[in-house]
Amino acid sequence: MSEPIAFVTNGETVPLTAAAGRGFQYGDGVFRTILKHNRRIVDLEPQSLRLRDDASRLGLRIEEVQLARLRDEATAVAASMDTAVIKLMLTRRDSGRAYRPAGGEVDRHVMLHIAPQYPREYWSDGIVAAMSDTIVAQQSTLAGVKHLNRLEQVLAYQDAPAGAEEVILCDSGGHVICGGRSNLFCVVDNVLMTPDLAHGGVRGFMRDQVLRLADQLGIETRVAPLPRHRFAAADEVFMTNSLIGIWPIKRIDSRRWPPPGAITKRLAQALAHPELS
Amino acid sequence: MSEPIAFVTNGETVPLTAAAGRGFQYGDGVFRTILKHNRRIVDLEPQSLRLRDDASRLGLRIEEVQLARLRDEATAVAASMDTAVIKLMLTRRDSGRAYRPAGGEVDRHVMLHIAPQYPREYWSDGIVAAMSDTIVAQQSTLAGVKHLNRLEQVLAYQDAPAGAEEVILCDSGGHVICGGRSNLFCVVDNVLMTPDLAHGGVRGFMRDQVLRLADQLGIETRVAPLPRHRFAAADEVFMTNSLIGIWPIKRIDSRRWPPPGAITKRLAQALAHPELS
Repeated sequence: MSEPIAFVTNGETVPLTAAAGRGFQYGDGVFRTILKHNRRIVDLEPQSLRLRDDASRLGLRIEEVQLARLRDEATAVAASMDTAVIKLMLTRRDSGRAYRPAGGEVDRHVMLHIAPQYPREYWSDGIVAAMSDTIVAQQSTLAGVKHLNRLEQVLAYQDAPAGAEEVILCDSGGHVICGGRSNLFCVVDNVLMTPDLAHGGVRGFMRDQVLRLADQLGIETRVAPLPRHRFAAADEVFMTNSLIGIWPIKRIDSRRWPPPGAITKRLAQALAHPELS
Repeated sequence: MSEPIAFVTNGETVPLTAAAGRGFQYGDGVFRTILKHNRRIVDLEPQSLRLRDDASRLGLRIEEVQLARLRDEATAVAASMDTAVIKLMLTRRDSGRAYRPAGGEVDRHVMLHIAPQYPREYWSDGIVAAMSDTIVAQQSTLAGVKHLNRLEQVLAYQDAPAGAEEVILCDSGGHVICGGRSNLFCVVDNVLMTPDLAHGGVRGFMRDQVLRLADQLGIETRVAPLPRHRFAAADEVFMTNSLIGIWPIKRIDSRRWPPPGAITKRLAQALAHPELS
């Protein structure tokens, strides 16, 4: 199919920008959400490299010069704000041939958001989470990639009970995969565990950072399939993402945990992530 | 996360239209592709009803008055063209709360495209298809829905051999599910069969129309899981969608079929779909 001749939203003609391209039509792209805090964009360079790696999983090519331009654009867009959330996106450039991708050329997108604010207790005491009935489909080709097909996450939050700050998604085999917008960790007998993401889920930047940090601190780690009953029976559980760092989980449905355990606390302290409170 | 403050594509500020909303961010919406031919929009009303049904599967509400407005918008956008492709989309209106949907309110979108043209032989002799290695993930919540998360289709076409007009996707159990942009049928011992879509795939408008037509013609039909070896061994195979109607398949990889069989021909004749050649 050729490029669109017209695009009308709610009766109004909309310019045929890249936003009307394959990103919108098919979710054919990848993204990263990054925090700017106290005038510093946190991990902009390594996050942009992870964005590039994810893009290559979809067959998208981005040259170093384009990646540098994207970082410059992110810096420029957010220049007037000390604290903000920056979303970087790469989408496949329109080929005019419907689903069939003509090549690996990309469009670069930067979105700027006001940073969210959360109660300080989310960091000190933890949050409430709920097990979701939405199943993470097993799709090895896309597993781990932070791509733009995110309906499962939307559906999981749609069904979440009131008061749950995070939802926990499992695969059809009953293994915990990830949170709706986070990666998940648990501690069992002083071993730090996080789900293997070979068949589904999103590999967040903070997940790998926490695994590395644990290594540095001499905490034993294990990345493996994680049955939900094992997760729910863990000594400590917490969630991670690039905006919040680490949030302990104090309750999942009816299962409660006492104040954050020793390993969660140690990791959060070492991470020293800003608290958006 | 709040609504974006800025959206920059390839270094240029882009208006914050609905196209920068949840449709783009998450693929949180549904669509239908419709043919306008000889000044008539084919099946606009029933297609819009199917769009609404799919929307409700995502928890999106659209009142009859909005749906009528969408049809009016489609008619108006395409008014100056006798033949065209119209894509109708509904996306969830931005809630400003990241993945978490605030409600079922929708934005309506209409895209207008020049109609594609294909060789006449695609209707008379059939097309070449290829089995794809891209697996359709089993996701019952989303199965059958024509939603905007279409990365599997993109990946399937990306890996398609040159000369293949269509790709055929299977689930992890080796069952044929659908074509990249079509539904699939086969004839075995004079029974018309098409895959059950309870766990994956897209339920196209033309699929149901062909099933209905077969009923009217007294052709026995069966909707059931369809192992790929059974599909490849069928007496006749064909694909359907709303733009092309019916295309016989004359070859899948090394398996060849003689000129279109009796049931395929009978259905195509009764359907009398316009040929975009």
